[in-house]
Amino acid sequence: MQTTGSTRTQVVIVGAGPAGLFLSHLLHRQGIESVILEHRSREEIEGTIRAGVLEQWVVDLMNGMGLGDRMMREGHFHSGITLRFDRRSHHIDMAELTGGKRVTVYAQHEVIRDLVSARLEDGGSILFGVSDVQFHDIDGKAPRVRFRRGPDTPAEELRCDFIAGCDGFHGPSRQAFPAAARTEYQMIYPFGWLGILTEAPPSHPELIYANHERGFALLSTRSPEVQRLYIQVDPKDDIANWSDDRIWSELHRRLEDDGGWTLKEGPIFQKGIIAMRSFVCDPMQHGRLFIAGDAAHIVPPTGAKGLNLAVADVLVLSRAMTDYYKSGSTEGLDRYSATCLRRIWKAERFSWYMTTMLHRNEQETPFEQRVHLAELDYLVHSRAAMTALAENYVGLPME
Amino acid sequence: MQTTGSTRTQVVIVGAGPAGLFLSHLLHRQGIESVILEHRSREEIEGTIRAGVLEQWVVDLMNGMGLGDRMMREGHFHSGITLRFDRRSHHIDMAELTGGKRVTVYAQHEVIRDLVSARLEDGGSILFGVSDVQFHDIDGKAPRVRFRRGPDTPAEELRCDFIAGCDGFHGPSRQAFPAAARTEYQMIYPFGWLGILTEAPPSHPELIYANHERGFALLSTRSPEVQRLYIQVDPKDDIANWSDDRIWSELHRRLEDDGGWTLKEGPIFQKGIIAMRSFVCDPMQHGRLFIAGDAAHIVPPTGAKGLNLAVADVLVLSRAMTDYYKSGSTEGLDRYSATCLRRIWKAERFSWYMTTMLHRNEQETPFEQRVHLAELDYLVHSRAAMTALAENYVGLPME
Repeated sequence: MQTTGSTRTQVVIVGAGPAGLFLSHLLHRQGIESVILEHRSREEIEGTIRAGVLEQWVVDLMNGMGLGDRMMREGHFHSGITLRFDRRSHHIDMAELTGGKRVTVYAQHEVIRDLVSARLEDGGSILFGVSDVQFHDIDGKAPRVRFRRGPDTPAEELRCDFIAGCDGFHGPSRQAFPAAARTEYQMIYPFGWLGILTEAPPSHPELIYANHERGFALLSTRSPEVQRLYIQVDPKDDIANWSDDRIWSELHRRLEDDGGWTLKEGPIFQKGIIAMRSFVCDPMQHGRLFIAGDAAHIVPPTGAKGLNLAVADVLVLSRAMTDYYKSGSTEGLDRYSATCLRRIWKAERFSWYMTTMLHRNEQETPFEQRVHLAELDYLVHSRAAMTALAENYVGLPME
Repeated sequence: MQTTGSTRTQVVIVGAGPAGLFLSHLLHRQGIESVILEHRSREEIEGTIRAGVLEQWVVDLMNGMGLGDRMMREGHFHSGITLRFDRRSHHIDMAELTGGKRVTVYAQHEVIRDLVSARLEDGGSILFGVSDVQFHDIDGKAPRVRFRRGPDTPAEELRCDFIAGCDGFHGPSRQAFPAAARTEYQMIYPFGWLGILTEAPPSHPELIYANHERGFALLSTRSPEVQRLYIQVDPKDDIANWSDDRIWSELHRRLEDDGGWTLKEGPIFQKGIIAMRSFVCDPMQHGRLFIAGDAAHIVPPTGAKGLNLAVADVLVLSRAMTDYYKSGSTEGLDRYSATCLRRIWKAERFSWYMTTMLHRNEQETPFEQRVHLAELDYLVHSRAAMTALAENYVGLPME
C-alpha cells in the first residue's frame, strides 16, 4: 500500500466503541494525544441499538469525567433484579446487599453518542469510515498504523508510541498477534437469544430473569416508551420462523406463568437472534499493541458485563500509559494483561454462572439441569449467596 | 422361600449404617419399635474405616440424644479449612463467617460403634449377618420383610407398618421400587481419590483442599496418631501402580508447593482408590417403603456431606412417623420425599461445586478449567462467597 505521507500521535486507537472512546477521553485528561480510527460512520455507531447495563463504578467514572449529565437524566437506576423460576418470583435487593450500589440501564449507543460528542467538542480526533487498517512494527518502539480515510482515498500512515486495539471481536487487532503468541479460550453455548424492541410502556419496575421449562426469558427496558425483551431460542433458528404473535405468546408463557402481573404488548419494531459465546484471549498485549474490550474477550449477555469490562480494560491501560509518559516506567504496561485478565476471568465466571443457571440446555445431563435449579433454590434463600450475586452484578471493586 | 414363622414390629430398618442406626434411636425416643436387619457382622461395620465430617446440627443432635460423650472427647473440632491454589494458601474461617458454627471430624465407624452400643444397651433389636432380604406388599398397608438370620437358617418374616431402606447404594431397597416409579440422576466424574491412612502426627491444624496442576489433594486427619490423605488419580488406575514412595512424592508436590510447611510422613497401613459419583433417586418413597442415605443419593466426598445427609433424611422420616403414630396423619410421610430432596439437591449442588472447582478435569475445555480457577480467586477475596461456602460446609439449617 502506498502512503501519501506520515504523521504522528502518541496513541492510535482502533475502534470507536466504548473501549476506544473511553480510552481517548481518559488519555486526553492526562494530556496524552490519541487518534481514533473507526471503520463505520458516526451515524452507524450512534444508531446501532445495543443494550447497556452500567456498573456503579462506571457511572461514577462517567460523572467524574463530566460525561454523565444525560445518563443521569435519561438512565434508569435499578437497585434490584427479579429472578423467576418454578412459578415464583424472587426479588434480589442489590442495593441493600451491597451497601447502596445499583446498576444503571443506559443503552450503549447512548453512551457512545455522549462520548463522541464530548470528544469532538474537546478537539479530539476521531476518523470515521477508515478502511484497510494495517499494523506495522508492533514489536518495536515505533509502531505504525496504515489506513485509508475512504475506499478511494490514498493510504496514510500514523506513527505512534502505542496502538490500542479496541476494534471488537471481529477486528484486525487480535489477529495481528502471532498465533503462537496468544491462547484463546472459548465456549459456544448451544442456545441464543431472540431479542425484540417494542413500543410499549414498562411492564415491571426492574429486570426479570426467568428460568422456565420452555427456556430462559429476560424482561428489560430501554425507555418509558421502548422495552427490550429476550427469549432463549436455538441459535441456528431463523428469525423468519418467529411471527410477532409467536414471540408474544412465548414471552407471556415464560414470564407471566402464575406471576400475578401482565406483560404489556406493543408493536415490535426490531427483532433478531444472537448467538452466545464466552471468549478470552491471553495475553492482551503483543509488543506495543494492547487489545481491550470485545477484541480481547466476549461474555454472554446474561451477566450484563460486556461494556463494563471494556471500560475496566482501558482504565487500566490509561493508568499504565500515564505512568509511562510521566516516569518512563513500563511496569504498568508490562502488567496490563495480567491485571485485566484477573478481573476478566471473574466476569467470565459470573457470566458463565448466570448463563448456565438460567438457561435450559438439552446438551446437559438431567443431573446438571437439576443442579442449576438447586442453585437457584439455594441462592434465593441464602443472604450470602444473594450478596455474592449482587456484588458481581453491580460490579466488583476496581483495584 | 419358606418361612418358619411371622413376627411383627412397627418399622423394619434395612441396614445398620448411620441412617438406619440414627433412625432406630430417633424412633425409640418416640416409643416406636423397630428392628434393624444388617447383612454384615457387627465387627465388619465397626471395623470398616470411613471418613466422617459432622455438621454442627448433627453434633448437636447426637449430644441431645445422649450419644455424644465419646465424640466430644475424641473428635476434632475444626473452625476453618484451608484452600490452596496457585501456590498460595487461603484460610476460610468458617466459625467467624457463620456465627460460631464448626465441623467435627469424627470417623463414621466411630459414630456407628457409639450408636450400636447405645442401641443394644437400650434393648434395641439389631440383627447382624442376615441374608436374602425380600420385600413384600410394600404397596399395601401391611408390608412384610422376609430374610434369613444366616446362610443356613430358615427364612423368617417380619410384618410391619413401614420399611426404611437404609441399605446403601448397592442394597436391595431402591431396586424394590418399580423402575417406572423412579427417576435416577447421575454424574460419574472422570477422576477418583487415592486415599491412605498413615501412622503420623498431624501436619496441619485443619483440612487442606489443594487444587494443583498435577491434580487435587486433601490433607485430613483421623486422630493424633493417624492421618488421612488423598490425591486425585484416574479412577481406573490400579493401586499396585502406587508405591508408598510415589504416593508421598505426589502428596509433597501437591500440598507443600511453596507452602512454607512440611508434610509429616509415616508408615502407610491402608491405601485404595475410590471412584467419584453424584446420584439422586426421585422419589424416595414407594408405598410403605422409604429409602434414606446412600440408598437414595450419593455425593462425591469433596463436600463431606454424605453422612450428614443420611442423618437429615432419617430425622425427617422419624418426625413423619411420629406424627403418624400420634395422630394418624400421613401428611409428613407423604411429604417425606419432597422435603428431603430439597436439602439433598442443595448438598448435591455444593458437592458438585466443590468437586468441579478443586479437581483438574481433562475432559473439560480449557475455558471451563480457567473458570474454576477464577471461581477460587473470586472466592477467597469475597466475604460473601466465603460465607456461602462456609454455611454449606458447616451445614445449612435443618427446617
